Amino acid sequence: MPGIQHRSARGPTTNFEVVMALIVQKYGGTSVADPERIRAVAEHIAYTKSHGNQVVAVVSAMGKSTDNLINLANQVSKTHPGREMDMLLTTGERISMALLCMALADLGVEAKSFTGSQVGIITDTVHTKAKILEVKGDRVRAALDEGRVCVVAGFQGVSTDSEITTLGRGGSDTTAVAVAAALGADSCEIYTDVTGVFSADPRLVPQARKLGHIQFDEMLEMAGAGSKVLALRSVEFARNHNVPIHVRSSFTWEHGTWVTGDTARKGDGVEDPIVAGVVHDASESKVTVQAVPDKPGVSAALFEPLAASNVNVDMIVQNVSVKGTTDVSFTVPKADMKVAEKIVADVAKQIGAEGVTHDDNIAKVSLVGAGMKTSPGVAAKMFRVLAENDVNIQMISTSTIRISVVIAATDLEKAVRALHTAFGLDSGSAYSAPLPERK
Amino acid sequence: MPGIQHRSARGPTTNFEVVMALIVQKYGGTSVADPERIRAVAEHIAYTKSHGNQVVAVVSAMGKSTDNLINLANQVSKTHPGREMDMLLTTGERISMALLCMALADLGVEAKSFTGSQVGIITDTVHTKAKILEVKGDRVRAALDEGRVCVVAGFQGVSTDSEITTLGRGGSDTTAVAVAAALGADSCEIYTDVTGVFSADPRLVPQARKLGHIQFDEMLEMAGAGSKVLALRSVEFARNHNVPIHVRSSFTWEHGTWVTGDTARKGDGVEDPIVAGVVHDASESKVTVQAVPDKPGVSAALFEPLAASNVNVDMIVQNVSVKGTTDVSFTVPKADMKVAEKIVADVAKQIGAEGVTHDDNIAKVSLVGAGMKTSPGVAAKMFRVLAENDVNIQMISTSTIRISVVIAATDLEKAVRALHTAFGLDSGSAYSAPLPERK
Repeated sequence: MPGIQHRSARGPTTNFEVVMALIVQKYGGTSVADPERIRAVAEHIAYTKSHGNQVVAVVSAMGKSTDNLINLANQVSKTHPGREMDMLLTTGERISMALLCMALADLGVEAKSFTGSQVGIITDTVHTKAKILEVKGDRVRAALDEGRVCVVAGFQGVSTDSEITTLGRGGSDTTAVAVAAALGADSCEIYTDVTGVFSADPRLVPQARKLGHIQFDEMLEMAGAGSKVLALRSVEFARNHNVPIHVRSSFTWEHGTWVTGDTARKGDGVEDPIVAGVVHDASESKVTVQAVPDKPGVSAALFEPLAASNVNVDMIVQNVSVKGTTDVSFTVPKADMKVAEKIVADVAKQIGAEGVTHDDNIAKVSLVGAGMKTSPGVAAKMFRVLAENDVNIQMISTSTIRISVVIAATDLEKAVRALHTAFGLDSGSAYSAPLPERK
Repeated sequence: MPGIQHRSARGPTTNFEVVMALIVQKYGGTSVADPERIRAVAEHIAYTKSHGNQVVAVVSAMGKSTDNLINLANQVSKTHPGREMDMLLTTGERISMALLCMALADLGVEAKSFTGSQVGIITDTVHTKAKILEVKGDRVRAALDEGRVCVVAGFQGVSTDSEITTLGRGGSDTTAVAVAAALGADSCEIYTDVTGVFSADPRLVPQARKLGHIQFDEMLEMAGAGSKVLALRSVEFARNHNVPIHVRSSFTWEHGTWVTGDTARKGDGVEDPIVAGVVHDASESKVTVQAVPDKPGVSAALFEPLAASNVNVDMIVQNVSVKGTTDVSFTVPKADMKVAEKIVADVAKQIGAEGVTHDDNIAKVSLVGAGMKTSPGVAAKMFRVLAENDVNIQMISTSTIRISVVIAATDLEKAVRALHTAFGLDSGSAYSAPLPERK
């Protein structure tokens, strides 16, 4: 990425040669939560532009405004047609983007706002969780050519039926990455309320370290394992289109975490750690269907109706058959539990299972790291660490670069801290130094 | 208007034969101010539809939400580009219309919302006060044919440059009338926070009466003279396209005032009153340019720069010349006074006038009535009534169906009440009976 000057906190910047780059910046809800924050964002955009860069800013709705609109809808009615919910919720980003353009105008920066439709973000016709099919971007390109900053409403598009759609929660990240891909941007900066991606949740693990760099695949597994820093879909999109992401904070403006396709870490020659981070998720419940007859078609009978009801099944574990029956356990979001319970009870009866139990007091802990591919023994070490800390493992699931276990919710903090230390992730150990300025 | 059933308050309705009519209903900001009001509006729409009518509802932004957005803009910046203001303010109506569709869905009424752009309200490119060039309405017609209620965002359109525009304050009235004209609606009901058009402002004149019917021309003069019930542009549009308007309250649902092109009143044979109403306006100031040389081009020199600065000059009075000079007086909105003062001072110097004075403590009182055309002596009677009440007249201006005078603001109440009584408008006098049900 030659010549992009990234601001190093609010202090003076180093004197790199100025070469024009195209930077997409995404500002989340907390970054534009009030007039003062909006003016701060405008100043940062003006700063970026004054260093010779072209800037496209993608904005979310201000602070809690989306939640407020949902509250309003709940007060008005019990029926929320998707088309009208999308019409309602897309107003939030439009307010942010218009205000940001005004703040930029105050600074003498010519800016122009664009709705999803005006950008040409074409989606399928599934309201409230539409998928992006294409980003045209002609009007944005024309405005950039005129020397303007473009401010784009996140989270929204226009369907092939000419209806306004939304991309679902976290959709503004996806908008930013998709626009960056369509415009061939040099990088996509995601500004949020944390300073980057950490080796564990700092609220649980005070010694957690900010990662200087992480691979797309690792970030994908982290997002899947419960990390909330980036929306999973945006990372998928970034990987598929090779868009480098820089996750950073709009409160400190300091360097954050780069998420890229580079498989070698850029850590001054320090050897790669095997594990990049410990991720946890306490938002799921566990369901076990007991003594399921072990014959073909049983799993399909169970999981097809769950999928049809949009229950998001995560981990699935099935043991080998004992005496012709087996136990099937899986996790679902607590929010989907009520729907899932009824479906599973019906299916259990149909397939002749013995019974169904469920447990809300569970948590999932995952180790994620590209180094696992070539380092055998990570799982064994993880299980030993947990055993030494008296943490009982209820379920296990693995991918090539991730190991996840389900444990009792009460053991969560202890488990995460013990694993963080055991795998050499505490600050002060190898890899705590921030990466040098990228150029 | 055959077969339209209008709801007579909340009580039982008379049993007219049900014939399908197309009714456009416009709900102002106070009518959709909170979830409860929105649900009440939804019930009224459902009621209208259940009687065999097709309904298009045009909505304003909820309560004070437009003012809140303007406040937000003021907090963010001093610079408010028109394009971004329009983007910001159009969100208000979109929120209202999405919520109203949800409330209708709760009642089992299939409804669909439409932005100005989706309706095909094509405007010129003047942001914040665009003029409607054309209403396509294809998508609305298709949805009506499918048996749906259409909910339309007021106040907004899309320009010939594909940019989102607004029609200026009061624009939702104009949207409603324009949509009614384009669809060939049977009537356009304007729901607001008053029960109709009154013979005078009831806050000033307790004996003021609700008018059962008023002509387009009278309503135009009333709006021009300071009545706030209907936006002037919407009345012009209604007259030009002969769209009957029914002004009524969404709080009482009782019959209001019909505004139509009918030149004969429908008052059970009671003789027409000469004066329909007394209208006042205390929002203007008076400017006098003294001893202006009486030669060609002087008025143009004065009023051209005011027009160029968008100062809305209302009454202009110039006396005949005495000794080669004349005084020119005019009124402007108090809000424009600061701009006007500077321009007038400059011009006065250029044209060799003696000086400029201005007076903020004035008010305008107007008598409006189509009957004036054929009734000489209205002006004389007006002046006599004012004289008898010790009210001094500062300026006079007339049209064929209106007489306006400028008086001291302190005399306003006295003048309006005296004129209301003198011209037989107090309740209890002729014409106080409400009109019979229109069919």
